[in-house]
Amino acid sequence: MNTPQPASSPTLADPDTPFAVVDVHKSLRNIERLATRADRLGVTLRPHVKTAKSLDVAALMHSGTGPCPVTVSTLAEAEAFADGGYTDITYAVGIDPHKLPRVIALLDRGVTLRILLDSTEQAEFVTGAAREAGIRIPTQIEIDCDGHRGGLRTDAPALVGIGRTLHEAGCLDGVLVHAGESYFAHSAEEQRLAAKNERDTAVTAAERLRAAGLPVHTVSVGSTPTAHAADDLSGITELRAGNYVFFDLVMAGLGVCQIDDLALSVVVTVIGHRPEYGWIVTDGGWMAMSRDRGTAGQPLDQGYGLVTDLHGNLVQGLVMSAASQEHGTLTARDGAVLPELPVGTRLRILPNHACATAAQHRGYHVIDSSRPARPQHAPAIQSVWERVSGW
Amino acid sequence: MNTPQPASSPTLADPDTPFAVVDVHKSLRNIERLATRADRLGVTLRPHVKTAKSLDVAALMHSGTGPCPVTVSTLAEAEAFADGGYTDITYAVGIDPHKLPRVIALLDRGVTLRILLDSTEQAEFVTGAAREAGIRIPTQIEIDCDGHRGGLRTDAPALVGIGRTLHEAGCLDGVLVHAGESYFAHSAEEQRLAAKNERDTAVTAAERLRAAGLPVHTVSVGSTPTAHAADDLSGITELRAGNYVFFDLVMAGLGVCQIDDLALSVVVTVIGHRPEYGWIVTDGGWMAMSRDRGTAGQPLDQGYGLVTDLHGNLVQGLVMSAASQEHGTLTARDGAVLPELPVGTRLRILPNHACATAAQHRGYHVIDSSRPARPQHAPAIQSVWERVSGW
Repeated sequence: MNTPQPASSPTLADPDTPFAVVDVHKSLRNIERLATRADRLGVTLRPHVKTAKSLDVAALMHSGTGPCPVTVSTLAEAEAFADGGYTDITYAVGIDPHKLPRVIALLDRGVTLRILLDSTEQAEFVTGAAREAGIRIPTQIEIDCDGHRGGLRTDAPALVGIGRTLHEAGCLDGVLVHAGESYFAHSAEEQRLAAKNERDTAVTAAERLRAAGLPVHTVSVGSTPTAHAADDLSGITELRAGNYVFFDLVMAGLGVCQIDDLALSVVVTVIGHRPEYGWIVTDGGWMAMSRDRGTAGQPLDQGYGLVTDLHGNLVQGLVMSAASQEHGTLTARDGAVLPELPVGTRLRILPNHACATAAQHRGYHVIDSSRPARPQHAPAIQSVWERVSGW
Repeated sequence: MNTPQPASSPTLADPDTPFAVVDVHKSLRNIERLATRADRLGVTLRPHVKTAKSLDVAALMHSGTGPCPVTVSTLAEAEAFADGGYTDITYAVGIDPHKLPRVIALLDRGVTLRILLDSTEQAEFVTGAAREAGIRIPTQIEIDCDGHRGGLRTDAPALVGIGRTLHEAGCLDGVLVHAGESYFAHSAEEQRLAAKNERDTAVTAAERLRAAGLPVHTVSVGSTPTAHAADDLSGITELRAGNYVFFDLVMAGLGVCQIDDLALSVVVTVIGHRPEYGWIVTDGGWMAMSRDRGTAGQPLDQGYGLVTDLHGNLVQGLVMSAASQEHGTLTARDGAVLPELPVGTRLRILPNHACATAAQHRGYHVIDSSRPARPQHAPAIQSVWERVSGW
């Protein structure tokens, strides 16, 4: 990555817009920040690769020891990461019985694929399938800490019975908690409390199973806000987080990162002006940004995104305020003057939600903002990285 | 399409969820409805293929004469449709100078690719590029009828100058208007007025250019709501619409179609229950549905979508009320009782916005609801159709 660029190497001025850009310098900085925290807290970090869905981005997380443990959101990701040499994978969406043949196929390849469930009926079909295949399917019980979506409460009557059903088939691996409501925790103290609650819930569930004589190996917690707020993870074996690899305006709005940490953006081109409305029109609409309006519920609504120049410097006061499929509208706010940006000008848009924006693209053009661009040139494109898509 | 299915043919019970489904019967019905209207109004229909982005769906529109005129939203669509034999294509997003080499390459292949612009600076670089390449680039001037996004007002001082610049280089093709605000016209009368305004605006702009001695060939209007509401298109040469090939809950909310006309849906699987909250949890989140919440601004907010069984029968009172990346939450409303749907149950979700939901998928599993499923079987999958993606 530190070889000089030939004069003809492509820059952000070259590919047709819109396209997604990853700044590898910022991404690495975000990755090191959380890796350091996890080390200090004494837990294994198991990044969630659902944000970038890229083997190349995941490779930034290796600490010289090759493929790390990862979390995935689809079996397509599990299969792609298994193909890439990853052997320790948690599929963190409650299991659908119909998907078990692909789970078993991955286990048969030697991948330790952990699955998730939160009901007696799921435990019964998982253990039935495991016995029929003559294998162990390492399974975690999803525990709910904040009413976000799935999971059992720690006092759920079914919890111990599910644990026992799994254990008797050799399938009980542990418990998993995700503090999804931490995305709405708008202060450092609320985030710290969300992290404490997430940790306490996981440990309580694990202790309840252990008190019933059941072995609990993995005690897994995580979300990007709580992973950055936790100050005590005693009793926890691993920490999961995904969004932090890129961060986004939602996370900046929560104070989990700074705007300068955002590693993902979308390059767009000015294609028109409506001075009578105060609009600059670009060729980057919701197809390029997604329809995610995650900051709409935050104290500062960032529209569809903030605007920077090609070098990543914020264009103060300019916001992408509207989107249709292939059009974006930029407007000035807070009394800012609309800048003069002729047709053909390229800009970058920082997204509300990195997971959703990244999903609109087949891959990433990679830049490194720690390497200054040549004078009068846009940042050099180091490489193009592909994404995994589908299910 | 009318050959009997072998017993082993796949059904909607087979592929892993989530996946997108197109009901070819409903799509054909929607297509015929608008084709009949266009015939009656005496205009050429130029479907916008940005919704389905599929050569197979577009083929449903052929009336025995092969590839029809189409509208596209990206050059990637233009190139894919040119590869598929389409020779009359309008690229209906204001031109970015950087994209002209691909435009010229398509023209050089013999495709009549019409482009769009709304400024003097664009007219100058387009005619400059045309002269340099020694070709005509058929160009339309975008006219704004309702302040939706781009375009010149009919009284814009620049209009005639742009027309003359284009004409002198042999590049003036006509004018194009899109009544984008018709998506917010909540009655048949408002839609009729939006259609009249769109038509009147286009004709006024064309007449202003003609009065200056400039030839105007194409006078193009269209949006799905206005295309279904127009009662007089005199002076108009062609009608554009895209969404109607699938329709969606936004269009049903406007009264442009019925719920029963929706041809696109997403098959999901129940993966859990939270009876304490009244939630059914599925494996279809925003990655499968998109983040589009287009009905949120309508009188009846349909959440992330309405729920049907695999045969397309509405599950009354059930709505997809929340989404995370790979989880959907279904809840009962209007006093409805939450149905008992065990883990593993498959459902279909009807989307807010077909263009956005379709974009989350690489292709479509095709069914035909005019052919009854075999007893005790889910609808048979007739074929799998691919989408064009990227830019």
